[in-house]
Amino acid sequence: MERIEHRACFGGWQDVYQHRSEVLDCEMKFAVYLPPQAATQKLPVLYWLSGLTCNEQNFITKAGAQRYAAEHGLILVAPDTSPRGDEVADAEGYDLGKGAGFYLNATQEPWARHYRMHDYIVDELPALIQAHFPATDARGISGHSMGGHGALVLALRNPGRYRSVSAFSPIVAPSQVPWGEKAFSAYLGPDRSAWSQWDASELVATATERLPLLVDQGDADEFLGGQLQPQRLQAACEAAGHPLQLRLQPGHDHSYYFIASFIGDHIAHHAKAL
Amino acid sequence: MERIEHRACFGGWQDVYQHRSEVLDCEMKFAVYLPPQAATQKLPVLYWLSGLTCNEQNFITKAGAQRYAAEHGLILVAPDTSPRGDEVADAEGYDLGKGAGFYLNATQEPWARHYRMHDYIVDELPALIQAHFPATDARGISGHSMGGHGALVLALRNPGRYRSVSAFSPIVAPSQVPWGEKAFSAYLGPDRSAWSQWDASELVATATERLPLLVDQGDADEFLGGQLQPQRLQAACEAAGHPLQLRLQPGHDHSYYFIASFIGDHIAHHAKAL
Repeated sequence: MERIEHRACFGGWQDVYQHRSEVLDCEMKFAVYLPPQAATQKLPVLYWLSGLTCNEQNFITKAGAQRYAAEHGLILVAPDTSPRGDEVADAEGYDLGKGAGFYLNATQEPWARHYRMHDYIVDELPALIQAHFPATDARGISGHSMGGHGALVLALRNPGRYRSVSAFSPIVAPSQVPWGEKAFSAYLGPDRSAWSQWDASELVATATERLPLLVDQGDADEFLGGQLQPQRLQAACEAAGHPLQLRLQPGHDHSYYFIASFIGDHIAHHAKAL
Repeated sequence: MERIEHRACFGGWQDVYQHRSEVLDCEMKFAVYLPPQAATQKLPVLYWLSGLTCNEQNFITKAGAQRYAAEHGLILVAPDTSPRGDEVADAEGYDLGKGAGFYLNATQEPWARHYRMHDYIVDELPALIQAHFPATDARGISGHSMGGHGALVLALRNPGRYRSVSAFSPIVAPSQVPWGEKAFSAYLGPDRSAWSQWDASELVATATERLPLLVDQGDADEFLGGQLQPQRLQAACEAAGHPLQLRLQPGHDHSYYFIASFIGDHIAHHAKAL
């Protein structure tokens, strides 16, 4: 594991590391923010999953999250959004292949060898973080768009693994919208029965742990009606009795200006649980 | 004047406009953040000048300044760093020509026609802002690196025009360092007597207004010894009795992580004066 960026930020350090992932069978980068408190004590970790086309840089350069992490004493970990490298399968278009891993374990060729982002985020990366940084095993997870889908699904699939979960503008019902249908068809194959275990709105129906979901959604989001459709998650949570706080934020779109405006709320939400 | 971006942000709006500049004789873009208070009252304006290679986007996406502007009720205006367009002269390298206007009025060919960033920032742009936005005539100015140089020089050259000035990692003595020598030789010609009116460390000697200078500088800045040399400004201010608060920030480099960490302090400094 090699540190490739190291920058003072709000009394702590915004670092980026490169390492060989066994699970993904490729070189990966991730960003980690160590707040000032990390110099003297172990701290809980908030994982951030970014959206389509992003890598480990978007969140750390645009969200302004470090200020709040420094206030609350949280480590922030922002991984890349897919396996990377010349040997990794890719596709035309921004919504499949590199930059579009959807935080699942692919079962279909040519994806199955490298596209195992679920196992990377849930198991391999946290083990690495706990081995190399002053991190406790208290974890929260959040993300944006495809990464909001990832945060919801990883928390729902892995009861006990995360103490808190939130999402900005998440894809909540990937089986029902174009982005999800394209990705799931490729990564999981045409049999839709295999899709339900990667769909937050289906997972809440059978969740054994009722971890409260905090979701922020801009009402001027250009993807609201076509790709996001948060009302599907709302209906599923109501049917299952799963706790959901869905906040429709007036005027906000799908951008990092939206995330920056409310990341302080989300970090306070996670800090309370962690 | 056409609005080309409009994004909800911290209760206000982060907008970007495109317009024809008479002074620069080309199409220009600038960013303006309107905090929530702008919906009901006129507010003072803080101008932000970015550094080499930047345009109107860097500050608004990376500094996290909107939160503080919303707290204090300041409008933020972030212009581009040079004239733009196919008809505008350019040069090889990142430190001359487009993206490197140095906030001066060029006198030499082929630069003199378009490179008049001083007059654009000091006169044309504020007139436009006051005509189209709820802005008072109370103005502060700040910036980073080449833009820190710009903020200091514009404030020192134009007594009474700005009520407050600050800078991050500024070039303070352009006549004495490679970036400045290259740019001034091209824009102003080889006669160094013409350079002094664009050099902050020389301008403080003859300043008629003792506007206090707030300067933050990272002590791990990769350009500290070669290009920035803040001790030259410190010596000039001591000799002239000009008020300077120079803060050396341990561990910080030249990046936007540095700006993000202290922009709240700077905006509070400007808000107090405005």
